[in-house]
Amino acid sequence: MQAEVITVGSELMLGFTLNTHSQYISRACVPIGIEVAYHTSVGDKMDRLAEVIKIAHHRSQLVFLCGGLGPTLDDLTKEALAEVLGETLMEDVLWRQRLEEFFVNRKSPIPANNYKQALVFPSGTVFPNEKGTAPGLSVTKDGVTYILLPGPPGELRPMFDLQILPFLQSLVPSEEVIYSHPMSFFGIGESALEEKLKDLITKNENPIIATYALEIGVTLRLTAHAQTVIKAKELIEPIRLEILSRVGDYCYSEQDQSLEEVVMQLLHAKKKCVSTAESCTGGLVVHLLTTVPGASGEVKGGFVSYTNISKGHIVGVSDEILKTHGAVSGETAKQLAEHTREQFQTDFAISVTGVAGPAPSEGKPVGLVYIGLAQEGVPTSVYELSLNGNRERIQRSAAKHALFILFERLKKGETTI
Amino acid sequence: MQAEVITVGSELMLGFTLNTHSQYISRACVPIGIEVAYHTSVGDKMDRLAEVIKIAHHRSQLVFLCGGLGPTLDDLTKEALAEVLGETLMEDVLWRQRLEEFFVNRKSPIPANNYKQALVFPSGTVFPNEKGTAPGLSVTKDGVTYILLPGPPGELRPMFDLQILPFLQSLVPSEEVIYSHPMSFFGIGESALEEKLKDLITKNENPIIATYALEIGVTLRLTAHAQTVIKAKELIEPIRLEILSRVGDYCYSEQDQSLEEVVMQLLHAKKKCVSTAESCTGGLVVHLLTTVPGASGEVKGGFVSYTNISKGHIVGVSDEILKTHGAVSGETAKQLAEHTREQFQTDFAISVTGVAGPAPSEGKPVGLVYIGLAQEGVPTSVYELSLNGNRERIQRSAAKHALFILFERLKKGETTI
Repeated sequence: MQAEVITVGSELMLGFTLNTHSQYISRACVPIGIEVAYHTSVGDKMDRLAEVIKIAHHRSQLVFLCGGLGPTLDDLTKEALAEVLGETLMEDVLWRQRLEEFFVNRKSPIPANNYKQALVFPSGTVFPNEKGTAPGLSVTKDGVTYILLPGPPGELRPMFDLQILPFLQSLVPSEEVIYSHPMSFFGIGESALEEKLKDLITKNENPIIATYALEIGVTLRLTAHAQTVIKAKELIEPIRLEILSRVGDYCYSEQDQSLEEVVMQLLHAKKKCVSTAESCTGGLVVHLLTTVPGASGEVKGGFVSYTNISKGHIVGVSDEILKTHGAVSGETAKQLAEHTREQFQTDFAISVTGVAGPAPSEGKPVGLVYIGLAQEGVPTSVYELSLNGNRERIQRSAAKHALFILFERLKKGETTI
Repeated sequence: MQAEVITVGSELMLGFTLNTHSQYISRACVPIGIEVAYHTSVGDKMDRLAEVIKIAHHRSQLVFLCGGLGPTLDDLTKEALAEVLGETLMEDVLWRQRLEEFFVNRKSPIPANNYKQALVFPSGTVFPNEKGTAPGLSVTKDGVTYILLPGPPGELRPMFDLQILPFLQSLVPSEEVIYSHPMSFFGIGESALEEKLKDLITKNENPIIATYALEIGVTLRLTAHAQTVIKAKELIEPIRLEILSRVGDYCYSEQDQSLEEVVMQLLHAKKKCVSTAESCTGGLVVHLLTTVPGASGEVKGGFVSYTNISKGHIVGVSDEILKTHGAVSGETAKQLAEHTREQFQTDFAISVTGVAGPAPSEGKPVGLVYIGLAQEGVPTSVYELSLNGNRERIQRSAAKHALFILFERLKKGETTI
C-alpha cells in the first residue's frame, strides 16, 4: 500500500516551524508494511491545498493530512478535502457536546468559530482528541483513504499511536512485513564503517544495510522484508553476527538507545555509582545521565568547575598541578576525577577538561579535551582527544566520548580505547 | 517569485532522517522576497523523482533540489532532472581535478563512481563544495531555475549561505521585501498571549502578527512587507510598542535569542557572576549557560547534588533541614543557593530541587520544583513551581524557569515574579 503525508501550515512555508510529523508517520508506517512515497508541505491557501490533494488522489491509496483542523479561518484542510472529493461535512453531535464541555471546564464561553471543529465526514471515522478540540477524521473515496490529524505534536502523536495505528493495521493486507534492526556505533566514522562492511552492503538486498549518521555517532539499519517478523529476523541474524565480528567493539546498542541509557543500564546491572567533574562541557555529562529515569540510584552528583579557583578550592586539584600543567591537561583531568570520586564516594568518577572554543585557552587549541576516569582500586586513566566543530559540537562530542569511555570500562573491565 | 523545495532520499521516506533542509531554505528565502509555496520529499526512485520535478516545473519559477548528488547508483537527482529537461550532463574539467586532488589528500584511490560528481549542466552554474565532493549546480529552462544542493547539512548550509544566497538575490526583482521582527516570551502561554493581543492580531494585516509555540515559551513574529526594510520596520514599530505595553514583562528577547544568551549578556554588561546548585535538572542550568561562548567570565561553576549526602556533605545544606523539610523543599532550595554562592564566591547563585519523575519522591508529586535565588546583600528568594509533562520536559522547563528568574532579577533588580 502506497501512502503519502501532507502537512499543512503557512508557518512551515515561512520556515518558522520544523516539520517533524512526516518523519514520525513514516517511521510508524514502515514496520506495518505501508510504503510512504511522498511528503508534501503546503501553506494555508485553499487553491494550493486543493491542488496538492488532487495530485495525491491520483497516485496514493492512503493520504495523511496533518494540521489545518483548528477553529480559525486559516484552517482549511477539512474544507479543501471536502471540496476536492465532492463530500459534504456534517456536524457530529457527540463531538459538539465534547467541545461545549471543554469550554465549560475552562470556564470560558465557546467561541462561535470552534463549532466548525465538530464538522466531520459522515461516511468516515471520528478519532477523539484527548488533548485538544480538533478530532482526527478519516474518509475513503475512489479507493483512497484520507486520515486527517491535528497539527500540534502533543495532540497528533498520542492520537496516532493509540488510535490511528490500530486503524491502519486493519487496512493493510498482512502479506508482508518490513522489519528493521538498529545497531548504534560510536568512535568510528560513517565512511570508515561503510569501508569495513562494503562487501556486505553491496551484496545484500534482503536485508538491506544502510548507514545513518547521527549527531554524534552512526546508526546502521538492517531492514528485511518477509512474511512474518520471525522470518525477517532470521534473514537479519547471520549478517548481524558478521557485522559484530568486524566492528562490534564500536557498537553500544542494538535497541535504538542513547549512550547515556546504555551506561545507566550497565551501572544499574552492576550496582555501581558514578560522579562527574566537568569544565568545558559545563555539566552536560551529568545532565545526560540524569535524563534517564531513576538516575538517582547510580548518579550521586557532580562538580562543574569553570574556574581554576573552583577546580582547586572546591574539587581539590592542587595549585601546583594547575600552575605547572594548566587547567586543560591530563594531570588536571586525573586529579579532577580522583578528588571527585573521593568526595562523592562513588565507584567511578569521570572528568572532562578542555577548550570548547571559539577561542584557544592557555595557548591550547580549540578542541583539545582531556577525559579522566577514576575507579576504586584501579589506576586512573586519562584520554586526550582532538575534536572538531563549533563550541556546541565540541561540548556534545566531548560529553559523548566521556560516556563511551565509561561504557567500555563497564562492559569490558579495565582495557579501554 | 514562487519557489519550492524538493528533498531527495529514501532515508526520509523511511523516517530515519528528519528533513531540516526545507525549513532552512524557507527561512532564508522569506527576507529576500522569495515565496516558498511547497516542500516535497521523495525517495531515491527515478520515476517518482522525475514526476515530482515535472509537477514543480509547471507551478514554480525556482526549484531547490536537495540530496541525491553522491557518487552511488542511488544518487539520481542530477540524472532525473537532465531527463525531465532534456538536457545533457557534461564533465566539468576543473571539478574533476578537484575530485582527484581530494582523494590524493585522503591518500586513497578515487573510486570510479566518484567521477560522476564532476558531471554538470553546461548552460548552468557550478557552486564549489568546500566540505565534500558534490558541487552545487544550477540550470534554467522554460523560465524555471533549478538549484541542486548536496544532502549533508554540513555541506548544504555553508554552500547556501555563502554562494546560493548571493545568486538568489541577483534573480529576485527588488520591488518588495518581507521583514520579520521576533519577540520571545516566557511565563505566558500561547493562548493567554493571543487573548491579550486578540484585537491587534485580528485587525492587522501588515504587519501580520503570528504566534509560534517554542519547546518552552512562545515567539511572536510581526511580519511586514514594504518597498524597503526601513519602511517595513516603520509599519512594525507602533504595533511592537503596543505589544510591549501589554505583555512586555514576559518578553525576554527581540533578537531570536535564547534565555541563556540573554542572561549571559546581562551578567556580562553588569559585570556579575553566577554559580548553580542543581538536583532534578542534573546540571542543565549550568550547561545551558556554558553553551554561550565566553561563559567562563560570568559562570564560575556549579554543584549537581543528586543525593542527600552530597547536598549535605558537599554543598553544605544542614542535616536538620533535609530531615525536617526534605530534599524537595523551599528551605533546601534556599540553603543550596546560599551555600553555593558562598563556596563559589559569586554575586548570584541559583538552585533547583524538585521531582522530575516519572515517580513521586518523598511523597511529593511529579513536577513540584523549588528554585532558590541567592544574591549578595539581599534576602534569598524561593519560588515554588508545579510543572507538567514527562521527565525531559520537566527538567527543561525547570531549567528555563531558573534562567527566567535570574533574567528578571538582572533586568529589574529585586522584584521578580
